[in-house]
Amino acid sequence: MARIVEVTELLLREAQQSLLKTSMALDDVVPVFEDLDNAGYWSLECWGGTAFHSSIRFLNEDPWERLRTYRKLLPKTRLQMLLRGQNLVAHRNFDDSIVSRFVEKAALNGIDVFRIFDALNDVRNLKASVDAVKAAGKHAQGAICYSPSPVHTIAVFVDIAQQIKELGCDSICVQDVDGLLRPQAAYDLVKGIKQRCGSDTLVSVHTHSTTGVTLVSLMKAIEAGCDIVDTAISSLALGPGHNPTESLVAMLEETGFESRLDTERLRRVNRHIAGVRPRYREFSDQAFGVDPETFQHEIPAALMLNMEYQMKGQSTPHLLDDVAEEIQNLRRDAGYPALAIPASEILGTQAMFNVLQGKYSVLTSEFADLMLGYYGTTLGDKDPEVVGKAASRQNKDAITCRPADLLEPSWERRRTEALAVGSNGSDEDVLTYAMFPNAATRFFQTRGAKDTPELSRDARGVPERAPVNAAGSPTVPAESRTYIVRVSGEEHNVTVTPAQ
Amino acid sequence: MARIVEVTELLLREAQQSLLKTSMALDDVVPVFEDLDNAGYWSLECWGGTAFHSSIRFLNEDPWERLRTYRKLLPKTRLQMLLRGQNLVAHRNFDDSIVSRFVEKAALNGIDVFRIFDALNDVRNLKASVDAVKAAGKHAQGAICYSPSPVHTIAVFVDIAQQIKELGCDSICVQDVDGLLRPQAAYDLVKGIKQRCGSDTLVSVHTHSTTGVTLVSLMKAIEAGCDIVDTAISSLALGPGHNPTESLVAMLEETGFESRLDTERLRRVNRHIAGVRPRYREFSDQAFGVDPETFQHEIPAALMLNMEYQMKGQSTPHLLDDVAEEIQNLRRDAGYPALAIPASEILGTQAMFNVLQGKYSVLTSEFADLMLGYYGTTLGDKDPEVVGKAASRQNKDAITCRPADLLEPSWERRRTEALAVGSNGSDEDVLTYAMFPNAATRFFQTRGAKDTPELSRDARGVPERAPVNAAGSPTVPAESRTYIVRVSGEEHNVTVTPAQ
Repeated sequence: MARIVEVTELLLREAQQSLLKTSMALDDVVPVFEDLDNAGYWSLECWGGTAFHSSIRFLNEDPWERLRTYRKLLPKTRLQMLLRGQNLVAHRNFDDSIVSRFVEKAALNGIDVFRIFDALNDVRNLKASVDAVKAAGKHAQGAICYSPSPVHTIAVFVDIAQQIKELGCDSICVQDVDGLLRPQAAYDLVKGIKQRCGSDTLVSVHTHSTTGVTLVSLMKAIEAGCDIVDTAISSLALGPGHNPTESLVAMLEETGFESRLDTERLRRVNRHIAGVRPRYREFSDQAFGVDPETFQHEIPAALMLNMEYQMKGQSTPHLLDDVAEEIQNLRRDAGYPALAIPASEILGTQAMFNVLQGKYSVLTSEFADLMLGYYGTTLGDKDPEVVGKAASRQNKDAITCRPADLLEPSWERRRTEALAVGSNGSDEDVLTYAMFPNAATRFFQTRGAKDTPELSRDARGVPERAPVNAAGSPTVPAESRTYIVRVSGEEHNVTVTPAQ
Repeated sequence: MARIVEVTELLLREAQQSLLKTSMALDDVVPVFEDLDNAGYWSLECWGGTAFHSSIRFLNEDPWERLRTYRKLLPKTRLQMLLRGQNLVAHRNFDDSIVSRFVEKAALNGIDVFRIFDALNDVRNLKASVDAVKAAGKHAQGAICYSPSPVHTIAVFVDIAQQIKELGCDSICVQDVDGLLRPQAAYDLVKGIKQRCGSDTLVSVHTHSTTGVTLVSLMKAIEAGCDIVDTAISSLALGPGHNPTESLVAMLEETGFESRLDTERLRRVNRHIAGVRPRYREFSDQAFGVDPETFQHEIPAALMLNMEYQMKGQSTPHLLDDVAEEIQNLRRDAGYPALAIPASEILGTQAMFNVLQGKYSVLTSEFADLMLGYYGTTLGDKDPEVVGKAASRQNKDAITCRPADLLEPSWERRRTEALAVGSNGSDEDVLTYAMFPNAATRFFQTRGAKDTPELSRDARGVPERAPVNAAGSPTVPAESRTYIVRVSGEEHNVTVTPAQ
């Protein structure tokens, strides 16, 4: 009897984000829903991460409404979201009242599986969300941010897994943010987790195909006992995205492992997505190739692109290699956070300042807070000199407690504020407002215009990349940028100017 | 101590053919020669296969001269070529006098390793070349054409390997023509060969990345004892091409296996090739993605493209799926030859006739000869009814002997003919003429024009695909096709009309 390997399909959210830098229009994906829902996936990852922000900001679309649509049209399969622990779907810590309400509402609107991570691997930052997921009766999957460093040995990652397990998580995810998880490390890590946390502990592995080697890593993870792997349908896979679902199925043939997936349904999904993908070609500026230098600079593709864009905006593209190196220096100074949001953006912006204006001559407020422990504790020691600079920049001391312990419950205040700027009175609107006050305020005002075809058409195509850069480094003036958006054969000029 | 895995780099020949459909200009690759030659490769595959034909036909360049240049500029590393057994670098059988002279001259001009295959896996078709390679004191690598079929079990392939070994080959290659070699099959096959032929038998694995799964197959092959693997530098890898060299290196890290490759040199090679590759973008019409349907239709990417082009030329692109299916029917009727040259082209053309004009209402002469054993013996039984049709079409009987046994020594005749059409009197010219009489005749006349920049520029960019299609099916009228060739920023309109 072959052992079953379960699969989480990333097509509906992360694959789009990694390869198209935007969300696909609902009309483009709905035709594959019946096949997706019946193909035999363990879960469909479809919500959270950066998609929440881009939904209100660029698509003029209520993310909660899209979630309800997914739930309605995908009644059978688990729906999964990516949650940034105490940061939820934003870039800063929220107090527990917001965290628990967000999780509760996400569960009510349709999410079954919550993958929860913290860029610093500070497990305390996962606790409030895990508790809320359990209270909602849903599946809590705690994720290790896999980002190798001198202090992050396999043994250390296994320790983190055990801490996650002790929070009460239903499964543990090894979340490789950029294809750096080599085959042997994948094997050792999954083996270690199974040994330490118990062989019945469900282990999931998430990785990217940036380096070209991670399908092999999935094979080794499976040999070590991995239960669930993440893939994306092949027409929206590879490059900085993920390994192709169909290749995974073929890989397992006759190995003693097998997926439950129905290849005929996968074929239909793939053919449809291959057909609509060209509509997004303006935002798909990365080839499907591999970037072998990722193993040298160890920086995620999304962050590299971000930096490249920023450095071009500063007319200093030739300094990109310096910025990449500086990101790694900062990672060391900051005690080795993983290069995941928000740490990736914080280090990226600070690295740019260091290169352009002199080392630590300017400290961003976010970087200073990171150094002072306001995002959590890192595994490595922080450089005391830089901590000192950060303390004087922020005029406050370093902390060691769980950062959210310092935050007052803010639900009522945010509710009042949201109502004042046009919220429809729903808890979901309050949460949207809490995540992104400025973008939400504009969204509440334009939401009525949703049915204006011109607006939604144009907006749909706007890439997330540019504005995310700007949001990640608000003090750096970014240029406006014009895109030609081709929708159903019609061309539209869309100019994007960072506004938030 | 880690076990060394040796690497054959495909950048100089097959990677170009798979991804660019043409050969790169020497100027574009010479800058990486020092790094290539010192990177630690076991061999550099750089000659033979389809490149020979395209060299005289489209590049107006003497393939022997290019080989001598490679040898001169790559003095340290083994140079490797692909030889189609008794077909040499063409599409039909040659008598042994031509075979031995070709191998002798290739060795003298610089080839160290001869990878020799036969599309029918008729080992008798390898014997003359293997003998010649041994006589020249070079490395003979006998290749199994891996093309799964109901009669081609692992045990059968292992038997073929043993027959190849008995010919006196120095190594055995598992040559997967289109990424169909799944991980478990790779493991079982290599393990089986090592057990049967002796654990000290050098085994090499060649595969394509079309299906996205074959880097995993290389890992499993290595675990089973594979000694040498084929890869291509990452900027000329993936898609219908090959697995990236750098990903292979990363894959092995800490596994107990390692390559000898110098990653810094790989990085320089990769950056340079990434820089020049856009010059060939007009011929690189395939994405780097995977084609998961390859596992359904089991047809190599090159043949599929060929058929797609032909069917478009016949204004019947909607019948492509039928042709793909018919190719598999024909494969069964013909006793399951591998879909490698020349069998792939013969079956492809016949499948098209069957679909367009009715099943076997027209038989091409090549297909009839294939059915009658004039290309060799297949492992599966042939359909006797079709053999009967073939016999009456060709007015001759089926044979069971080694086909080349029926051929008269032709060296002297060809030498006289070559001299009559402008050969320079060298044995190499006679061989060029023997391979492709028409193209060689034109080449001998235009060779003097080599230094005319306009000609060589235009010619360099002409894709091999279109004319190869035409050559593969001379009775089907193919349309002429115009390409825009951009060389150093200048655009040229190049119209390709099948002439041979």
